[in-house]
Amino acid sequence: MQIDALLEEYISKLPDSTVKEAMHYSLSAGGKRIRPNLLYAVLKGYGVDTTVGDPFSCALEMIHTYSLIHDDLPAMDNDNLRRGKLTCHKQFDEATAILAGDGLLTYAFQVAASSQQDAVIVQECISILSGMAGPAGMVYGQQLDIEAENQNIDWKQLQQIHQHKTGCLLTAPLMMGALLAKHQEDLPKWEKIGYALGLAFQIQDDVLDVELTAKEFGKSNSDIKNHKGTSVSLLGIQAAKDMMNKLYHQVMDDLGAIDGFLSESLVEYIHRIQIRRK
Amino acid sequence: MQIDALLEEYISKLPDSTVKEAMHYSLSAGGKRIRPNLLYAVLKGYGVDTTVGDPFSCALEMIHTYSLIHDDLPAMDNDNLRRGKLTCHKQFDEATAILAGDGLLTYAFQVAASSQQDAVIVQECISILSGMAGPAGMVYGQQLDIEAENQNIDWKQLQQIHQHKTGCLLTAPLMMGALLAKHQEDLPKWEKIGYALGLAFQIQDDVLDVELTAKEFGKSNSDIKNHKGTSVSLLGIQAAKDMMNKLYHQVMDDLGAIDGFLSESLVEYIHRIQIRRK
Repeated sequence: MQIDALLEEYISKLPDSTVKEAMHYSLSAGGKRIRPNLLYAVLKGYGVDTTVGDPFSCALEMIHTYSLIHDDLPAMDNDNLRRGKLTCHKQFDEATAILAGDGLLTYAFQVAASSQQDAVIVQECISILSGMAGPAGMVYGQQLDIEAENQNIDWKQLQQIHQHKTGCLLTAPLMMGALLAKHQEDLPKWEKIGYALGLAFQIQDDVLDVELTAKEFGKSNSDIKNHKGTSVSLLGIQAAKDMMNKLYHQVMDDLGAIDGFLSESLVEYIHRIQIRRK
Repeated sequence: MQIDALLEEYISKLPDSTVKEAMHYSLSAGGKRIRPNLLYAVLKGYGVDTTVGDPFSCALEMIHTYSLIHDDLPAMDNDNLRRGKLTCHKQFDEATAILAGDGLLTYAFQVAASSQQDAVIVQECISILSGMAGPAGMVYGQQLDIEAENQNIDWKQLQQIHQHKTGCLLTAPLMMGALLAKHQEDLPKWEKIGYALGLAFQIQDDVLDVELTAKEFGKSNSDIKNHKGTSVSLLGIQAAKDMMNKLYHQVMDDLGAIDGFLSESLVEYIHRIQIRRK
């Protein structure tokens, strides 16, 4: 089943309420499903039936969506638009948006724990997922990001922010894919690939943010509004693009060096990310 | 090790940041540790080494604490005091409080998934914990509670709110205790006991809210401020007290009827809850 249909099915199991509506609204607001697609591509490359990844791909997308809902709140980035639609707290209200985020984050672990795979592997996947999303991972990155507002940060500090805020949750599907395919020995390689991919992805986001108007990009440019340092403002646009391309190449090279992994479908998917215009 | 020391140890493993400080501040703000104590008392009653419950008791307390932090936010109950101390968003700021809640909720699952117990049981415990805390459990109850503000709700609706908002997270430690003690067959009994205990506890909270001043109770009385129906306003104080005592008796009776469970230490602990004055 496709990820969108799976997400619909999981949400449909919940008792009706405004918070369910809000969770559904934000989940179906047109995300690119990058994290689920990465997980499926890893499973495909290992020759494993992709349905073993279903609960985890949904959990990843729920966690990603919760993070966007909470990031958009007035106390955080204070954004009105996300993917060309009203943000959750604008469509509903602040209390509902906080709860919808909490609901998605908690439900993600319930969905992950519903996996029928070997319990040892499920436990390890939940460990990776929570570690990457939590206060030593994405939540830590978000904290660093807030503290960097209106500060003069350097490139090293910005990399640290990107690695945690974006890299961690792009690394999780790669590592969970390797675990579900029973290739635990490859975890360090996937971790390295994930962080490089996350940094490339985030630099690209900064580049696109500058090159496109807020309308085309489908969200208001809160980074500029909030006076945040970006890879473009710190490195210059050409050096940022060069670094991004170098990182994408490194990712492709590293993918080719994993024994017994057919990288074709993951390389193709990452290429689609690389040429995205928004 | 005592629960407080365990929580300190888990928090100490996180990278230093304001969000870590805020998590620590709220975790150590003088909670009664009711959910961890319930879990330990169930394990004791089954004759199981209580340390098998350690990661889960910490996870329960982290989830309970996150729910208080988010409930206190200006967009929710807008409380300035909690347990006689400044609420998290007053001590820090709103963004930090949102992130501290997110961090505690996510870290709870990482801590639970670090358990060394049988993986099948760990998976089931995570399933119960997330289900009870999530959008069909506590988060759903919080949503119902918000919607009930300034509305004329009846006793049946209030019970529904209490069951989800309070009952679910008091039921989770009882069920997790039975799972960890390998007495899965007792789960339905623990579920029934948990909901009765949750309702009794919540009625008691309403009664104490009326009988004590805000200062003695250590938090501002936001229920009255927010014009919420309570068991006292709906039933009258004497009928509320009668129902509370009836529920506590029922809990004690049901505890005595679980085969192979020595209820002494749980009965004693629930009695301490029953006679609490704040």
